[in-house]
Amino acid sequence: MVPLTADDLEKLDQSDRLRSVRDQFELSPDVVYLDGNSLGPLPKATPARLEKAIRQEWGKDLINSWNKHNWVSLPLTIGAKLAKLVGAGPDEVACCDSVSVNLYKVLSAALELRPDRMTILTEESNFPTDTYIIQGLMRQLGNHHTLRFCDPTSLEHPGSSHQLDDSVAVVLLSHVNYVSGRLLDMAAVTSNAYRAGALTIWDTAHSAGALPVDLGASGADFAVGCGYKYLNGGPGAPGWVYVARQHQAGAQQPLSGWFGHAAPFDFERNFRPAEGIRNQLCGTPPILSMIALEVGVDLACQVPMKHVRDKSNALIRVFLQLTDERLASHGFSVASPRDPSICGSQVCLRHSNGYPIMQALVAHKVIGDFRSPDILRFGFCPLYTCFVDVWRAVEVLCDVMVNKEWDQPEFHKKKAVT
Amino acid sequence: MVPLTADDLEKLDQSDRLRSVRDQFELSPDVVYLDGNSLGPLPKATPARLEKAIRQEWGKDLINSWNKHNWVSLPLTIGAKLAKLVGAGPDEVACCDSVSVNLYKVLSAALELRPDRMTILTEESNFPTDTYIIQGLMRQLGNHHTLRFCDPTSLEHPGSSHQLDDSVAVVLLSHVNYVSGRLLDMAAVTSNAYRAGALTIWDTAHSAGALPVDLGASGADFAVGCGYKYLNGGPGAPGWVYVARQHQAGAQQPLSGWFGHAAPFDFERNFRPAEGIRNQLCGTPPILSMIALEVGVDLACQVPMKHVRDKSNALIRVFLQLTDERLASHGFSVASPRDPSICGSQVCLRHSNGYPIMQALVAHKVIGDFRSPDILRFGFCPLYTCFVDVWRAVEVLCDVMVNKEWDQPEFHKKKAVT
Repeated sequence: MVPLTADDLEKLDQSDRLRSVRDQFELSPDVVYLDGNSLGPLPKATPARLEKAIRQEWGKDLINSWNKHNWVSLPLTIGAKLAKLVGAGPDEVACCDSVSVNLYKVLSAALELRPDRMTILTEESNFPTDTYIIQGLMRQLGNHHTLRFCDPTSLEHPGSSHQLDDSVAVVLLSHVNYVSGRLLDMAAVTSNAYRAGALTIWDTAHSAGALPVDLGASGADFAVGCGYKYLNGGPGAPGWVYVARQHQAGAQQPLSGWFGHAAPFDFERNFRPAEGIRNQLCGTPPILSMIALEVGVDLACQVPMKHVRDKSNALIRVFLQLTDERLASHGFSVASPRDPSICGSQVCLRHSNGYPIMQALVAHKVIGDFRSPDILRFGFCPLYTCFVDVWRAVEVLCDVMVNKEWDQPEFHKKKAVT
Repeated sequence: MVPLTADDLEKLDQSDRLRSVRDQFELSPDVVYLDGNSLGPLPKATPARLEKAIRQEWGKDLINSWNKHNWVSLPLTIGAKLAKLVGAGPDEVACCDSVSVNLYKVLSAALELRPDRMTILTEESNFPTDTYIIQGLMRQLGNHHTLRFCDPTSLEHPGSSHQLDDSVAVVLLSHVNYVSGRLLDMAAVTSNAYRAGALTIWDTAHSAGALPVDLGASGADFAVGCGYKYLNGGPGAPGWVYVARQHQAGAQQPLSGWFGHAAPFDFERNFRPAEGIRNQLCGTPPILSMIALEVGVDLACQVPMKHVRDKSNALIRVFLQLTDERLASHGFSVASPRDPSICGSQVCLRHSNGYPIMQALVAHKVIGDFRSPDILRFGFCPLYTCFVDVWRAVEVLCDVMVNKEWDQPEFHKKKAVT
């Protein structure tokens, strides 16, 4: 293969049909931001929208904004927009709470739907909060359930997994693994779980907004997702929750706060769950954070997810080629799948000095992140990542290695948040 | 008693030591805002602070803000500030999630601490979400617990309540009732519950920020509170949760998300609760809403709660006198306590045409709210309510009655949010 040049990457940018989308983000041209899988950047439309929400809606219209600006419906109106991105019906998604809280809700509801099955099947390398939430609920329910870890890829092949026995109530998996980047075949796993009588809960935090997700066609029972990564909804943006239509009446989640009541403003004495997805709501939603999320969702909805995925694959292809050509000799190896059909929108490189190398990169404004013990993680978010960004990231990484820059003491210091 | 005049109220404003605090709020001079117990108004400092958070912290510093701007500690740093307002130690309060979610956490933890007691004692006229959360948890745990309603004032007198039998695990009460405005004697109830072996959970949504709350001196076990009412933290601002120091190690809440882990960024496989109040956290906090809350908390912290309470009592005293002098003849009666020592920072008037009367008032920019079936609710928030506001509210209310303005069809229309 002919080595890639900066010219090649500029040409790829010129023919990129998503090129103009980058202009919708506040991203300094001197930054290469490859950490949108941790915190998406600021859409240019967000400050003005929030300014209006703060000064006009809160400041001037005050309490009346719950009606006048329809704050009260935001969890469902944003949910209905987001539904299009993940193959759900507009009545199957609500935006609310955090990913963790939403996982807790649907896991509790799902276990109730399978009262005779006591196993929760998941993967050991889940984003930890997923496992923590399972453990917290199990403990609360008296530790009658069993948490079983498996290789989730074994669930992709019909009949090939002994894990899916008739004790399995719920299969809870990440659609894309947050470290390895491995993308699971959601339809295949869901269908195998279904045949085994188990329900599925999909954590799409590292897939929704970065690649096509089709919860409906996959037959997924429940899903949750994140607002602050690929949806660019702002730091700690509310998450979202999906409950397939057929489970909405039967699956009652335990956090039965007033926003999930059939008639919240009638102030009835007893809880009556709302019909439909609204029964996933609990308390009063954080409106400012919801409005920032809506801007991010609107932006993502402009672009066909297929185009996003195609560009993501292309960005990763050139990054992998450049890694092979220029980084392998510095001790980097590829830890994420090379096959684009099973890889999310990120690449992980392994290096024994990964932590200080990433700090040195960040000092040069090439921003990825580090995951213990030795993973440098790079997210390629096609809405704002250019092909020349990939070139620059590799150039800087080469410099950091050649000059041994990473070996400065400041880059070894541990930060609170990595 | 000599009837009050506009002059009298102007004089009260002139000698009001909190008078200048109103200048710190964006409140149009033509609005009389008596609904801060539902949504506090916008502090003037909030837009600039949020602009910085949005453009600089999120927009420019991106993911690094978790460290650089200490986003990661916001739940505890805001909690420590807020602790001063409610008589708690700086290590006993965390800001996070919603009131409803926080109630769920502490109720689940409290029930675990009293495994042999199966009764939850509360009041029927709680803000409904409190009862809904109890019901949701009871159902989830298999309906082994009993929900018992009582007159909470009966718990204020030692030995006078047969409600506090040895089946009572938890007493969950509102410090100030959201409709009646009745303020309970927290110390007395807590002490009586303690003697009966029960734990207390206080919902301070309608007291904290409006009057002195002393969780520590009262011996309260758990408490929750609201960010968007008297703390002026913005619509749907995160709530807060208090766990008395002695329960922090023993009481494990079930929503064990990664922010409550001992080492969240070590990405360990198994959940290990953080020591101290941080184990009340669950998912990633909504930073923009948190930052708005911090401005509100900072503002409230400037002013001694005793001054706030004194002014609140004075505002209510003149409103009650004017009600007697000018409104009683129009069919209004006082539904909140007349004794200031047992009344929160609100007054409720009862009128059979309460709903359209309140809509007519709002049309004249005198903003209170209505609670079914016949309560007009007026919050007197001493940080920004002037004595002349009280005069104007009564004037407008008189006009609305004299001219039968409330009987226009538009004022009878039901709104989604009341």
